[in-house]
Amino acid sequence: MIFDVMTLFPEMIENACNFSILKRALENEIITVNTINPRDFTLDKHKKVDDTPYGGGAGMVLMAQPYVDAYNSITRQQNSATIMLSPQGEPLCESVVKELASFNQIIMLCGHYEGFDERIRNIIKPREISLGDFVLTGGELPALCVIDAVSRKIEGTLGKIDSANDDSFADGLLEYPQYTKPREFMGLKVPEVLLNGNHKEIAEFRQNCRLERTKQKRPDLYEKYLNTNKKG
Amino acid sequence: MIFDVMTLFPEMIENACNFSILKRALENEIITVNTINPRDFTLDKHKKVDDTPYGGGAGMVLMAQPYVDAYNSITRQQNSATIMLSPQGEPLCESVVKELASFNQIIMLCGHYEGFDERIRNIIKPREISLGDFVLTGGELPALCVIDAVSRKIEGTLGKIDSANDDSFADGLLEYPQYTKPREFMGLKVPEVLLNGNHKEIAEFRQNCRLERTKQKRPDLYEKYLNTNKKG
Repeated sequence: MIFDVMTLFPEMIENACNFSILKRALENEIITVNTINPRDFTLDKHKKVDDTPYGGGAGMVLMAQPYVDAYNSITRQQNSATIMLSPQGEPLCESVVKELASFNQIIMLCGHYEGFDERIRNIIKPREISLGDFVLTGGELPALCVIDAVSRKIEGTLGKIDSANDDSFADGLLEYPQYTKPREFMGLKVPEVLLNGNHKEIAEFRQNCRLERTKQKRPDLYEKYLNTNKKG
Repeated sequence: MIFDVMTLFPEMIENACNFSILKRALENEIITVNTINPRDFTLDKHKKVDDTPYGGGAGMVLMAQPYVDAYNSITRQQNSATIMLSPQGEPLCESVVKELASFNQIIMLCGHYEGFDERIRNIIKPREISLGDFVLTGGELPALCVIDAVSRKIEGTLGKIDSANDDSFADGLLEYPQYTKPREFMGLKVPEVLLNGNHKEIAEFRQNCRLERTKQKRPDLYEKYLNTNKKG
């Protein structure tokens, strides 16, 4: 998988990919992360990428020309997707992540300041994806989330592929509680059932915890789960 | 505002705060970002922070002791909140961001691998916050999103406080389209109304765009907006 990230802060992307699972995926050439700085495509000597908005208002707007030219400079692979990280987009969720993981290349446009000149959308026609209903300074953190979440779905990124399937949301329920050594910590004991070696009982206990926890913490997901798993 | 981030990857947090608006907020001492590495609180010579899960299963579980001790080492300010970044939590949204911005200190626990020993939750009793319904390798990117989104709400972080209020979600609607120079790019022109200097017409045009765009792209937000703004 190739990630091409168009950003005014390439080092932010590069630094953050240098840890843990992403670092290993890069070293093992399971993913490639390129950065393209629209500032390198400006035509004026001040390397200006933004200007004041027509019609007035606070903040600066990213200009179309450097973004369109930067975009056109990217070598397009077969089966590639272009996404814009923007609060206007569809919220990122596990099914979108899985869909994105089926591409060979994901080109990402990171916004900054007040946003993009609308003509960038008109010309590039990206799929718009949002991290959620809150406002961030730029698209860099959302782009990193996409890189992380999508990379986890690609075989070879995780030590055991199981780890990904076990995770929250894989089947629409939250994770069961986890316990590790010691058996007792500050008076709190690991539930007996996890220690008895009876795999069936353990699986039942965990599934019940997942149902209970999802019902309590995320009634919306619980409803959806019930509807999906209804018989008949 | 003090952000205390408990993480196994402190450099990832520190590097990412070194750009753009967060960098300036740090330099101007509007925010402080500290990192606390639970690995520094391990008691064994291998500095082990995780172990296999009781009851079996893939992946590793973060042990209670290093996290509880690391947590207890943090100097507590008045009016402080403790949050755990976890897919189990309530989804981050603009109203949660605003609420968090009212604290003087936000302590964050970043998970990693398969998750936390449940007793960390039992003892520390954090408020759990999720970035959305997708799975990431760790809580570092979500913690950075919290730092970024919350910092933007603190006076002095943004150049003009207006910039924050203008943004998407401030009143439940998506942003209007923005345009900057040139007036025409690749045959696409800036809408005439933005050039005529009539502030009332510009405001009307923009509000209509916001309504239309929200209705089209995010019918859920549009419904909510209509319900909130109903008369009577």
